[in-house]
Amino acid sequence: MIDFKEALKIIGGQVFVPDTERVDLRDAPGRILAEDIISDIDMPPFDRSAMDGFACRRSDLGDRLEIIESIKAGDVPRMRIGRNQCTRIMTGGKVPDGADCVIMVEHTLPEDDRHIRFAGSKTAGNIAFKGEDLKKGDLVLAKGTLLRPGHIAILAAAGSGKPAVFRQPLVAVLTTGDEIVEPDTLPGGTSIRNSNGPSLVAQISVIGALPDYRGIIEDDPSATASAISEALSSCDAILITGGVSMGDYDFVPEVLRSCGIELFFEKVAIKPGRPTVFGKKGNIPVFGLPGNPVSAFIIFELMVKPLLFQMMGHKYDLPAISLPMGRDYSRKKADRVSFIPVSLNSRGEVIPAEYHGSGHIHSLAGAWGLMGMETGVYSIKKGERVNVRQI
Amino acid sequence: MIDFKEALKIIGGQVFVPDTERVDLRDAPGRILAEDIISDIDMPPFDRSAMDGFACRRSDLGDRLEIIESIKAGDVPRMRIGRNQCTRIMTGGKVPDGADCVIMVEHTLPEDDRHIRFAGSKTAGNIAFKGEDLKKGDLVLAKGTLLRPGHIAILAAAGSGKPAVFRQPLVAVLTTGDEIVEPDTLPGGTSIRNSNGPSLVAQISVIGALPDYRGIIEDDPSATASAISEALSSCDAILITGGVSMGDYDFVPEVLRSCGIELFFEKVAIKPGRPTVFGKKGNIPVFGLPGNPVSAFIIFELMVKPLLFQMMGHKYDLPAISLPMGRDYSRKKADRVSFIPVSLNSRGEVIPAEYHGSGHIHSLAGAWGLMGMETGVYSIKKGERVNVRQI
Repeated sequence: MIDFKEALKIIGGQVFVPDTERVDLRDAPGRILAEDIISDIDMPPFDRSAMDGFACRRSDLGDRLEIIESIKAGDVPRMRIGRNQCTRIMTGGKVPDGADCVIMVEHTLPEDDRHIRFAGSKTAGNIAFKGEDLKKGDLVLAKGTLLRPGHIAILAAAGSGKPAVFRQPLVAVLTTGDEIVEPDTLPGGTSIRNSNGPSLVAQISVIGALPDYRGIIEDDPSATASAISEALSSCDAILITGGVSMGDYDFVPEVLRSCGIELFFEKVAIKPGRPTVFGKKGNIPVFGLPGNPVSAFIIFELMVKPLLFQMMGHKYDLPAISLPMGRDYSRKKADRVSFIPVSLNSRGEVIPAEYHGSGHIHSLAGAWGLMGMETGVYSIKKGERVNVRQI
Repeated sequence: MIDFKEALKIIGGQVFVPDTERVDLRDAPGRILAEDIISDIDMPPFDRSAMDGFACRRSDLGDRLEIIESIKAGDVPRMRIGRNQCTRIMTGGKVPDGADCVIMVEHTLPEDDRHIRFAGSKTAGNIAFKGEDLKKGDLVLAKGTLLRPGHIAILAAAGSGKPAVFRQPLVAVLTTGDEIVEPDTLPGGTSIRNSNGPSLVAQISVIGALPDYRGIIEDDPSATASAISEALSSCDAILITGGVSMGDYDFVPEVLRSCGIELFFEKVAIKPGRPTVFGKKGNIPVFGLPGNPVSAFIIFELMVKPLLFQMMGHKYDLPAISLPMGRDYSRKKADRVSFIPVSLNSRGEVIPAEYHGSGHIHSLAGAWGLMGMETGVYSIKKGERVNVRQI
């Protein structure tokens, strides 16, 4: 059994060289940048007015100002501002030469059709200077960035209409267990429905990888071995659930080895999720996940997600946020690091989910994150701060 | 000019009756449930073993136990446990009648092929009882739930392989401005690239609605009116950026009115984003968003996003999380509510983005959320707690 941190180190130590492809901006959210984005222009590209108003010389603010031109966004100013002159200018318009400030419309009084007077007590400059946000040649977004909507505006402005992103790995999902039936079947007798398959498929797809659901595998070493071999020949990563514990039918680790997969660990000091197996064959990482649905879900979030992001060229290290507990919480044993699904109440306090054990999938409804409890910690009081990883 | 809270109240008061459709579980993440999900079975469906071990009677733990059967997940037990008897049982297996606990393999010693002895000092029950998580007929997920991966496991377990979800609204995105060119063009002279279009398209699609990008509209009232009319005839909601401020070419509010759109407000006491317009024609809500890219982005997050979720049958009320500031922050004016893009440092503290003004789109790179500052608040000290809305 290895430590959770040690397990993360082993996973983080795997090296992948993902392929790249170019995508349209509309398909870019959720993808990982495969190139540094360099601005091909200054931003703003010229001194631009930040307000609707009049461009003039600050030294003339006490005087009557003659309006010599009118400039909207997109116009090229023809006139240079001289003493006691001004240009009517709209937000985004190019500030004419000679002007050093823009006074807001609301701070002026019209004198006649061609003259105004500044009526405020003071004014800001209200000019966004050429290149003040970015200079041509500046790095605007680094390779490895997970693209969110805020980045899309930046790519567009920097002229990157078809950014290079890393290819999405195809991730096989295999479920083991003779007792498992698919969700559309009413389970009779001792069978139970397959919730791990659909849930892993969802977890894979929301992080931008491609799930390849390969069904329920019979509880039999040779059937399992052939399913694994097929997945090895067509997928970039493999997740198999169940068959990893101490029961007589938990032959998955043995089968993985027989398929030529080198196993790096087979047990982790974590709750839930102790019987988690991780290995690799060539460039293909393989996880044997616990059959218990809450365990499989949580181990995906804690270990598989960082690995899949790594395969897509992104370092996934969302900070654990320190938040106050909304109620007391305690546990009976503290021999392992533990992660508990939690929600946030309206005050942003942490409320641990009602949680009967690792088969209790309903504890995942409304889970905002996972609260970590270190080895040796038995209880946390209301108001104490805890580290929560968002899921 | 109306208050930000008042604006949210007006938006929140709009009523929509969205259509529904059924989707496969693999397409369900990010969609909104259009039906209550009722479990069609008890969960667990039978008394199941939570461990690999031996099912027996607690009163016999001091005695040698005879192994009378072996049960894996999916098997139906044939034998009833009597005095000094036990059944070998795997995790997920159905606990045989007569047993009241499962002792872990690790806590037993084999005596011979057919007998074991309990070697621990005490044991938990290790049985998940029939219906202890959920009873048949229980509500497992409510109509209006935004489906995340954790919910998918629950849908699967409850037998909902094709849940009813609300239809995704088609949201028109129109950009105004003669100075605007598309991202693949190198802007010459006084033109600038369209970043609002791609960024709004991304914001719409990541919340699960359908963007319909309709290009750049000429700065002309009749061109704008005909673009709006076309969008009204084919889309479920309209976003138009630019042309809403005080400049001479800011005729968008007027044009919206001429298209028969009732405007509920045309200015909001918020920074950035004061010139935000909101109205409705029939069931079609229309936003006039500021042309400044940071303003448009932030107003989408604060006002458009709740509205679009409403149109999809979901009440969007992510709590503002209270987090400590990582550095001092101040502003010169405090006459409006203000929202500043912020990131989190490795200690989970709030770091305001370097932010030159509402044209400074690079401030959105790495933004984790928006920090709110109420009217009258000029500064926040390092260590003080601030409310952050995640974006």
